[in-house]
Amino acid sequence: MEYIFADRMGKVQASAIREILKFTSEPGVISLAAGNPAPEAFPIDAVRQITEKILTENPILSLQYSITEGYPKLRETLKTYLKTKKGLGQDFDDLITTSGAQQAIDLATRIFCQKGDTILCEAPTFVGSLNGFKASEANVVGIPMEEDGISIEALEKALQTNKNVKFLYVIPNFQNPSGITMSLAKRKSVYELAKKYGIMILEDNPYGELRFSGEDIPCIKSLDTDGLVIYCGSFSKVLSPGLRVGYVLAPAPVIGKMVVLKQTNDVHTGIMAQIICEQFMNEYDFEAHIASLRKIYRKKAQLMLDCFEPYFDPAVTHTVPDGGLFIWCTLPDHINMMSFCQRAVQEYKVAVVPGSAFMVRESDPTQSFRINFSTPTDEQILRGMELLGKLTKA
Amino acid sequence: MEYIFADRMGKVQASAIREILKFTSEPGVISLAAGNPAPEAFPIDAVRQITEKILTENPILSLQYSITEGYPKLRETLKTYLKTKKGLGQDFDDLITTSGAQQAIDLATRIFCQKGDTILCEAPTFVGSLNGFKASEANVVGIPMEEDGISIEALEKALQTNKNVKFLYVIPNFQNPSGITMSLAKRKSVYELAKKYGIMILEDNPYGELRFSGEDIPCIKSLDTDGLVIYCGSFSKVLSPGLRVGYVLAPAPVIGKMVVLKQTNDVHTGIMAQIICEQFMNEYDFEAHIASLRKIYRKKAQLMLDCFEPYFDPAVTHTVPDGGLFIWCTLPDHINMMSFCQRAVQEYKVAVVPGSAFMVRESDPTQSFRINFSTPTDEQILRGMELLGKLTKA
Repeated sequence: MEYIFADRMGKVQASAIREILKFTSEPGVISLAAGNPAPEAFPIDAVRQITEKILTENPILSLQYSITEGYPKLRETLKTYLKTKKGLGQDFDDLITTSGAQQAIDLATRIFCQKGDTILCEAPTFVGSLNGFKASEANVVGIPMEEDGISIEALEKALQTNKNVKFLYVIPNFQNPSGITMSLAKRKSVYELAKKYGIMILEDNPYGELRFSGEDIPCIKSLDTDGLVIYCGSFSKVLSPGLRVGYVLAPAPVIGKMVVLKQTNDVHTGIMAQIICEQFMNEYDFEAHIASLRKIYRKKAQLMLDCFEPYFDPAVTHTVPDGGLFIWCTLPDHINMMSFCQRAVQEYKVAVVPGSAFMVRESDPTQSFRINFSTPTDEQILRGMELLGKLTKA
Repeated sequence: MEYIFADRMGKVQASAIREILKFTSEPGVISLAAGNPAPEAFPIDAVRQITEKILTENPILSLQYSITEGYPKLRETLKTYLKTKKGLGQDFDDLITTSGAQQAIDLATRIFCQKGDTILCEAPTFVGSLNGFKASEANVVGIPMEEDGISIEALEKALQTNKNVKFLYVIPNFQNPSGITMSLAKRKSVYELAKKYGIMILEDNPYGELRFSGEDIPCIKSLDTDGLVIYCGSFSKVLSPGLRVGYVLAPAPVIGKMVVLKQTNDVHTGIMAQIICEQFMNEYDFEAHIASLRKIYRKKAQLMLDCFEPYFDPAVTHTVPDGGLFIWCTLPDHINMMSFCQRAVQEYKVAVVPGSAFMVRESDPTQSFRINFSTPTDEQILRGMELLGKLTKA
């Protein structure tokens, strides 16, 4: 049998990150390539207590079919949390829980985009979203990043020159992969441009709670008086990615379409996982847990940042993130980035992710690679950075 | 803001079943409209013991990111189970775990189908799959059902007259909504026709384990020497639908594409849910549990079937399922089916699902409606059938 797949399957490849992760699981390799929460970041006892409680007090609720919109108590908890802690949510907004923020991105893409449409995004950006965009057969256009976020000049030019732009995808806080945070001024400019050109903004904020330096900056969604912003959040970095629970706050007509499409996608998100998230927010000290995560990642980020000066060739530059999980390193122009990454894993046994994985086209030029400080142990960070530094000097 | 959605969103509506379910949750209404497992069918103690164990012995595994293909131990367990119990799986096959069988259907549809393609299915068929097919913008063609399954004559005619047919979707065992089981002769004919016309078969078997009468009939997948059959299974009816775990056994190139698309859809299926399924199959008496479910549904089905003779007008016919959750009732031609269903819920306070919900187009003619015996209590079955019977005589 010769299998003839739909055209969209020709647009999307297996995530380069996941392919590298497979390779880097070989013994002896120190991986700075992942993006997993630190093992010590999981509130294991709380999850154990909650599952014990819900399977004792309300087992049928946690095992039976549930509704597509999401577990009602979790939806209410999240609406209140986003409103009181971040100033998000207008009367016209509604909220759906999703199977991770990845499903939120996928649903948003599929309800709005088809062949012939355009999606704008930061370049570089999160590879999982990029592949979802490509699967929609939309034209994906990358807008260069600057130190304080997306280039506003390039964004306006892209809005002027591209047809059928449906939305702009941004990760304003501690972006994956760059670690860059968008300034408040740029957030306002982005919102005004979206309004001017009549497009939506898909604001992805998986790392927002993980700020370990500086002051919180208002989300773009907090400016949304016109119903332009689809805000995606996640429990993956603040509780557990294995549970696969994310959420979307967006104008009710958008959420309504997401519900319809989610019915055909997975009916609803795992209900026990949703109850765990709700109970953890309401019955435990969620704020204290977030504070403990910030402490963990502040320490690990600093440990990694402190390795550049003693170990790295000074010609290699890097971002200094205020939160999140990633640092973005840039090689001088005379070094071949892909060869560097290959030598790193093959000769020096340290895995990093080549920046091309995060570009709209893998052939787009970049001298950068991504390293992560949340997954490796402190010892692995020190040893990995020492080895990587040697390669920069080799 | 005026929201302009993708064309596909105009093809798919909110599931009629879910709309009816919302309505029927009103107090005083007896619902025969659902399709949920019986509350007494959940192995609550086992799930509680397993979660306690995994969160004690291996908490990080159950909370951390996992791989898209699925939890390796569950995949191996399922491959062995399908091979030894059902004779399914060739050397060229592989298996992926999915977020319920709904995601399996959705992924299969999206990797193969686009605008201009054709999907064939039984008419009536499961509304969740129908909506997924419509969202792909494929042309969906319904093939009439007969007492022993799909009409082979109509199927061959459809294969001759429709272009770009990608697959035939069938639920051979205790079909939703009709309760009909496809005969072995027809399964062989379906396979031969698929081979002759070079199309795939999407075999959905969520109820296969729930046979309470007669002998098991081999799955179409058991005939698959040519790599034509995509087989979907689920834990929703044998363990818990709230966990959202399903799986697909299909030729490796098909599974490979599903993995790529699932990465963009939800990264992976909830890992704690997958471990629960694996542990339940390996550490508990899965066969004895299935036997207990068959006993529960045999009793409830018989209770409902025994109500027709005393309560119903003899002009109303019905199927006699050998398993599953549903009975399909057909009204005589002079009765307006939609009015009957409306009067049932509004005047008699008994909810059923109008057959039109399961037709390719809701306007396609049908005199049937679906009733369910798994969700209501025994008392609700007796009272609901008595009330419904009164309406058939009114």
